[in-house]
Amino acid sequence: MNKLCIIGLGLIGGSIGLAARKKRIARNIYGLVRREESIKEAKRLRIVDVATMDLPEAVSDADMVVIATPIGRMEEVAEKIAPYLKKGCVITDVGSSKRCVVPCMEEIFEKYTPFVGGHPIAGSDRRGMHSARADLFEGAPCIITPTPGTDKAAQKEVIKFWAALGSTIRIISPREHDRIVAAISHLPHFLSASIVNASVKALGGEKKVLGYAGSGFKDTTRVAASDAEMWVDIGMCNSDEILRAVKALDEELKILKRALRRKDRKSLHALLSRAGSVRRKCQTY
Amino acid sequence: MNKLCIIGLGLIGGSIGLAARKKRIARNIYGLVRREESIKEAKRLRIVDVATMDLPEAVSDADMVVIATPIGRMEEVAEKIAPYLKKGCVITDVGSSKRCVVPCMEEIFEKYTPFVGGHPIAGSDRRGMHSARADLFEGAPCIITPTPGTDKAAQKEVIKFWAALGSTIRIISPREHDRIVAAISHLPHFLSASIVNASVKALGGEKKVLGYAGSGFKDTTRVAASDAEMWVDIGMCNSDEILRAVKALDEELKILKRALRRKDRKSLHALLSRAGSVRRKCQTY
Repeated sequence: MNKLCIIGLGLIGGSIGLAARKKRIARNIYGLVRREESIKEAKRLRIVDVATMDLPEAVSDADMVVIATPIGRMEEVAEKIAPYLKKGCVITDVGSSKRCVVPCMEEIFEKYTPFVGGHPIAGSDRRGMHSARADLFEGAPCIITPTPGTDKAAQKEVIKFWAALGSTIRIISPREHDRIVAAISHLPHFLSASIVNASVKALGGEKKVLGYAGSGFKDTTRVAASDAEMWVDIGMCNSDEILRAVKALDEELKILKRALRRKDRKSLHALLSRAGSVRRKCQTY
Repeated sequence: MNKLCIIGLGLIGGSIGLAARKKRIARNIYGLVRREESIKEAKRLRIVDVATMDLPEAVSDADMVVIATPIGRMEEVAEKIAPYLKKGCVITDVGSSKRCVVPCMEEIFEKYTPFVGGHPIAGSDRRGMHSARADLFEGAPCIITPTPGTDKAAQKEVIKFWAALGSTIRIISPREHDRIVAAISHLPHFLSASIVNASVKALGGEKKVLGYAGSGFKDTTRVAASDAEMWVDIGMCNSDEILRAVKALDEELKILKRALRRKDRKSLHALLSRAGSVRRKCQTY
């Protein structure tokens, strides 16, 4: 393509920029940012070809626009950019919840240009452009969430785009997306925060947690260090599916507690073996 | 020291061997194993100077013996080695639960030689000698758990030993040890297994879990791939303290569920911020 525009150059947007430059996906890669310092940093880190705060400059004539802001800002951004898009420009996003985002985006862009929802399952506890990596999407799943109204040609473009960045493509509906990520991303995320808080509570303060934490604690709770604001948005958008996943966890905790109370080796072994056999099948990364 | 003996050359025992060789902690480092193949593997990986299945050869004349078998085998091992120890030989262990192990070891070794309980908070989801690393204990906490009956000189030797392997030393009672590790090690461990099982349950099978899992899921559940048998022993030894930690988690889950049900941004933000601020303080590793 000739011009790619990324809106928001945080960890995900910045990594898209780096990966797209590396893979030579577009002749011109623009990034729209909100602060003067971000322009300097994007230049220094060579995240995009042109980083700008000028919205029309960033999006006009773009062949593809990727909205990579937090979910909470997507509606506002979409409304602002829509009038400046050239006809046929493909719009996509990276939001972690899709049932909120997709219908809203489809409505806003309907008159202008095709929209296709996307969500790369990649990230880090780190945030911001300085944590961006060109290989962030390499081998990671990227979920594309078409609806009956999605333009097929635009969908193909978005799939081609993410495949070129190294992602493994999965295609499902926004509803199924939200159910799946509730279980494999949102549940582990909120639980990792709850584990930190429970450890602090059980030990009467953070001092012992910090003094004795080993690699097991650190791995299990790594994502708890992520940006709270972003995850509040996700929690609000996908609360019912997350609650459904937490309910499944509650059932598992009952099994765990019963096994510990009864000193039931067999049940505890079954619980650990079941989890271990699934976890060992996840490809290493 | 002249002779160090490590009983059991798994991940922990093997790493002690590699680290002790690297740091030249003893002139002769012996490892006691149970299988012929382990002798070959220990030789190939240069884990110890001499790997043997001959118990008297391994322990006699040793200045220090480190029992690095799973908790469930420690009593049997202790009874077998006790008669062969030279007077003044210092015995220590690496068990993850201490209220079970320490009194039992003290009783067995009382007539022979001093025992000092120890527990390096280091590990991996991998097991076995081939996963051993000389730097496994570097910067990791190692807990020493003396009792009123512990020999002070022996305690100093054990502290010196673990400090030389790179560990940060913490000294607490077996009871306090078990409470702390229940919160910062056993809770995250059992929860990571429960998260895997809950995800499988919520998605009606493992297929979607494996197909969509990203780095967040993989980190949070990494330890779930550990050896089940070893963790059943830990769960049995420390069940009441783990149940206490799970109770603290239950309270945290109530807060989480209430915030999601009520779409209460403020509570969800508070929960995530609290966890994030503690987690960010854990030193990177």
